[in-house]
Amino acid sequence: MTHIFNLDQIKKVLPTLDIVKDLEEGFIAYSRGQVVVPPVGELSFEDPPGDTHIKYGYIKGDDYYVIKIASGFYDNPKINLSSNSGLMLLFSQKTGLPASILLDEGFLTDVRTAVAGEICAKYLAPKDIYRIGVFGTGVQARMQVEYLKSVTDCKDIIVWGRNRSGLDAYQRDMQEIGYAVQTTQNAKEVAESCNMIVTATPAKNPLLHAGQIRKGTHITAMGSDTLEKQELDPKILQTADIVVADSIEQCLLRGEIHKALEAGLLNKKDIFELGNVIIDKELQRTSADQTTVADLTGVAVQDAQIAKAVYEALR
Amino acid sequence: MTHIFNLDQIKKVLPTLDIVKDLEEGFIAYSRGQVVVPPVGELSFEDPPGDTHIKYGYIKGDDYYVIKIASGFYDNPKINLSSNSGLMLLFSQKTGLPASILLDEGFLTDVRTAVAGEICAKYLAPKDIYRIGVFGTGVQARMQVEYLKSVTDCKDIIVWGRNRSGLDAYQRDMQEIGYAVQTTQNAKEVAESCNMIVTATPAKNPLLHAGQIRKGTHITAMGSDTLEKQELDPKILQTADIVVADSIEQCLLRGEIHKALEAGLLNKKDIFELGNVIIDKELQRTSADQTTVADLTGVAVQDAQIAKAVYEALR
Repeated sequence: MTHIFNLDQIKKVLPTLDIVKDLEEGFIAYSRGQVVVPPVGELSFEDPPGDTHIKYGYIKGDDYYVIKIASGFYDNPKINLSSNSGLMLLFSQKTGLPASILLDEGFLTDVRTAVAGEICAKYLAPKDIYRIGVFGTGVQARMQVEYLKSVTDCKDIIVWGRNRSGLDAYQRDMQEIGYAVQTTQNAKEVAESCNMIVTATPAKNPLLHAGQIRKGTHITAMGSDTLEKQELDPKILQTADIVVADSIEQCLLRGEIHKALEAGLLNKKDIFELGNVIIDKELQRTSADQTTVADLTGVAVQDAQIAKAVYEALR
Repeated sequence: MTHIFNLDQIKKVLPTLDIVKDLEEGFIAYSRGQVVVPPVGELSFEDPPGDTHIKYGYIKGDDYYVIKIASGFYDNPKINLSSNSGLMLLFSQKTGLPASILLDEGFLTDVRTAVAGEICAKYLAPKDIYRIGVFGTGVQARMQVEYLKSVTDCKDIIVWGRNRSGLDAYQRDMQEIGYAVQTTQNAKEVAESCNMIVTATPAKNPLLHAGQIRKGTHITAMGSDTLEKQELDPKILQTADIVVADSIEQCLLRGEIHKALEAGLLNKKDIFELGNVIIDKELQRTSADQTTVADLTGVAVQDAQIAKAVYEALR
């Protein structure tokens, strides 16, 4: 029998789970070569514009394999629907039978993405974060900050956005849950006042430049996950003390690291993979003046781990 | 809301539907270039051995797109489970939201595959079929014959199989539903007594040879759907009057046509696509002495069409 769960059920069980631990184990298995992750399947639509990604894979010898379907249909807000939706499917590695369908509406993808940011900050952010800079005003611009609460008590945010209404909504919503929020349309102002920065935009040209960054800053760049998208000046990666990828294989092809390699400003040997950073103290931040960058593109093992944890708690 | 249906519900509604018409429309749209079908996603497992295929696509401008997951875990019968399982997911092309999940356990894949064979026979088989030859004793060896009932009244079968117990079970089961069944382990005996042949095995070497085939025979080769599998001597395709592929693009890479092209015994220009055969009488059989071959590899548009028809009847 296939167990089917909806978003309310999933949201209820999530706070009881240790997703940081599950994702860390997933990233470690991935970096050890114990994870099978074929290339992402893609479908594009023109009218209305939308795209769907199919991410799938498994940890060898685990109980389940996972297929995750996530879509973005960008005109949905015009009819009062969220742009993003999706679901996760768990199948037995022993029989192929579908064990569970999690009708999470894309929520678990948001969570596993935010938790990946949390894990990066855990090992790479400076101990004393005095202000958090955020680029973008969408779901991840909020969740990435909220999931930092296990890493820092800092509640002081400066947020950069392209338009006024987005900034106002972000400020209002985040102040409601206890943050002090300054808004800006000047990236330099963010860089100069923060030592922890999250970029969470779909930008196709650098928003942040090398000269602007303060020494000792950690940046988690999670917006750029395609060949075209880019949020950081590649010189930031060139001059950083530590550059980390969630998946080196994926980051060679998409995101900030891809852009820096393409520009000849980064060597493949200077990129470390998150799963290795988690288990090796020498790859983590060791002093307050190191500048660090983590580039997240999203790996199917994150989906496998969060889906498995949620299913096992709900079944 | 996502509507979820199980196998019983699906089986109940299926007889009320005109799947031949739906698949014909699908094949026509495919041959007209109106269908988006990305490469098949694949996962392989070693212990126990299994594989999972993800087929997905859509007819441009249609209401839905479809993602179909089908797996084969070959040790399942040892624990009294079917080797094959799977499900189909329908999503809105307008919003990306999941409209329906059909928990069909692989049944709709079996049906759409058998109906594709029926469509091939409708346009390519001789009018007067005096005996049906079958290679293989599995699910498709049965369903391909049963779905010929709209094309021919012939109930006389000769079946070839690798082992005695499979042949005995096939004979018993098919006789129970009204067929006269002779069994054999000699392929020549099949070829010499039939003018309609279905090959439905996972063979990796030719079972049928060119000299054995009677003039005027139609062959539907549906077993070979990978790079390695092969059921027909490529000379059969070389000497056939009409060679048809469900998808020329796929048949260049897998199945009988792939093998014949590789052997230099067939030209790409001599292959016709099923969707074009359906709409063009000149590509169909025109006389009793033509020898014809249809090579089926399975196209995602079949999944899209059958899933849509079932969902619209059930919702």
